Amino acid sequence: MKIAALAGGVGGAKLAHGLAQILPQKKLTIIVNTGDDFEYLGLSISPDLDTVCYTLAGLANPVTGWGRIDETWNTFDNIAKLGGQTWFRLGDRDLGTHLERTFRRKRGDKLSTITQDFCHAWSVKHRILPMTDEPVYTMVNTLEQGELPFQEYFVHQRCKPTVSGFRFDGVEKARPAPGVLEAINNADAVVFCPSNPWVSIDPILTVAGLRPACEAKPVVAVSPIIGGQALKGPAAKMYRELSIQPSALAVARHYADLLDGFVFDKVDSDSNLSIQEMNITTLLTNSIMEDMAGRRRLAKDVIDFVNTLL
Amino acid sequence: MKIAALAGGVGGAKLAHGLAQILPQKKLTIIVNTGDDFEYLGLSISPDLDTVCYTLAGLANPVTGWGRIDETWNTFDNIAKLGGQTWFRLGDRDLGTHLERTFRRKRGDKLSTITQDFCHAWSVKHRILPMTDEPVYTMVNTLEQGELPFQEYFVHQRCKPTVSGFRFDGVEKARPAPGVLEAINNADAVVFCPSNPWVSIDPILTVAGLRPACEAKPVVAVSPIIGGQALKGPAAKMYRELSIQPSALAVARHYADLLDGFVFDKVDSDSNLSIQEMNITTLLTNSIMEDMAGRRRLAKDVIDFVNTLL
Repeated sequence: MKIAALAGGVGGAKLAHGLAQILPQKKLTIIVNTGDDFEYLGLSISPDLDTVCYTLAGLANPVTGWGRIDETWNTFDNIAKLGGQTWFRLGDRDLGTHLERTFRRKRGDKLSTITQDFCHAWSVKHRILPMTDEPVYTMVNTLEQGELPFQEYFVHQRCKPTVSGFRFDGVEKARPAPGVLEAINNADAVVFCPSNPWVSIDPILTVAGLRPACEAKPVVAVSPIIGGQALKGPAAKMYRELSIQPSALAVARHYADLLDGFVFDKVDSDSNLSIQEMNITTLLTNSIMEDMAGRRRLAKDVIDFVNTLL
Repeated sequence: MKIAALAGGVGGAKLAHGLAQILPQKKLTIIVNTGDDFEYLGLSISPDLDTVCYTLAGLANPVTGWGRIDETWNTFDNIAKLGGQTWFRLGDRDLGTHLERTFRRKRGDKLSTITQDFCHAWSVKHRILPMTDEPVYTMVNTLEQGELPFQEYFVHQRCKPTVSGFRFDGVEKARPAPGVLEAINNADAVVFCPSNPWVSIDPILTVAGLRPACEAKPVVAVSPIIGGQALKGPAAKMYRELSIQPSALAVARHYADLLDGFVFDKVDSDSNLSIQEMNITTLLTNSIMEDMAGRRRLAKDVIDFVNTLL
């Protein structure tokens, strides 16, 4: 069985890692959000892509989920000393990734090519693709400050402004990166990892042709909302500010017609009937991935569940 | 007494540091070679400027003389892992300087402004000026490979090619950085630090107006050649390849008419008469700066000697 998994952020990276543990190299392609990419200190930063790559490479910081393990911070200590901007702190090891990527992008290399080379260097065997090689910038519309670039909202302002909507700047011109459409078309099923629906999965689905490609396949989403909360990130806060009660049901409704199956936590069993009434098959399980075994367990649950849908 | 000191590289930085120890803030301006500046991995690198600033800030690596003390190398370890170019290795702390400088230069800030701000942040009290804010690239003409950019010759090829000449690309368009000409015009004397005459001092003297400004002042040079050798760097090798026997005398002849006084090591006393015959007053001393006391001692020797010339 071939799987195309859509991911972005820490939770998505964890399930992608679990899937990579149980699926052979040729059976899994991970398509990653690039809507939160940005330019910082002249560097091209691709936070979601790096989080997924580092996680699969075993290089991710196990405490934060993003950034590098055994990291040092000497470069940014000096930049802080020099009065430079440090609202987005980059570790020394991590900086090597951004410097080399920026250098290669300025030379004309595509993000997808660079990602492939980096994964090869890090011995990541499964294919990780950016959703597009073209620039797409997630913009967060806020009540207080109008439209903010995603990282300005997410990191600099720590998600404090009240969200009123989203826009994916540039997405109308963005084509899927080489291999993305083929990976979905050739997949037996598409898995939406437990990533933020608004700012991780939606940007991917908005790239030309990707939503229709997913619609043609069995799609299983894993809820990032557990017990009304997001384990990480602003998903629940976003739902509330958009006047939607954050819940597994809200996530299922978000994807609605796209979904054939929905995986969510047993603590949210009260949502089960409503989701089933949407003509979506459900799997209630333990969806918290506390450790490596947890990632593998949830991945196995998802794959077994997908199998029942085919 | 006001001094304008011309410097570049490790030896020059050491004497500049000594001068800064014994002269008050307002009495010393250090004018630094930028001919060995280059772009690397998209970063603006100013090796001589950094060496002088780090040395005066007490941040220089005491073993190499360049780069930072207590340095780590995690960024470049990752870049090496990713297959990037690493022939010029930059430490993590040092990288903060290059990132912030590059960011500010792309924003339009001048190198001299940035240097002033960095020195302020590092509590360097004496004024350090780049020779120019415009790009000047020292090109090394070689027998084997024609013209090479300086860092390609110096670091990448470890000074192995045979030198046949030099060219300072862009220098005809370069104006002295703000304050440089004034510092020389207002000085009671100009000191050429023990830096490479070909590639550290000559680029400075070639910037429009700086050689005439020096000619109008008492000039004292300190020989970077001791016992026929350069303590560091390729100066002696360059002299040999240009068919000149490397010696204190060769350095004095290099600067020739510019010089009023010349400071060189006692081991080279056999050059003394020939230099004096050039109508140059000489000071033979211990010119090796082995430690902080050595820097201060040589600086004091130089200043006392300058006083006898006024």
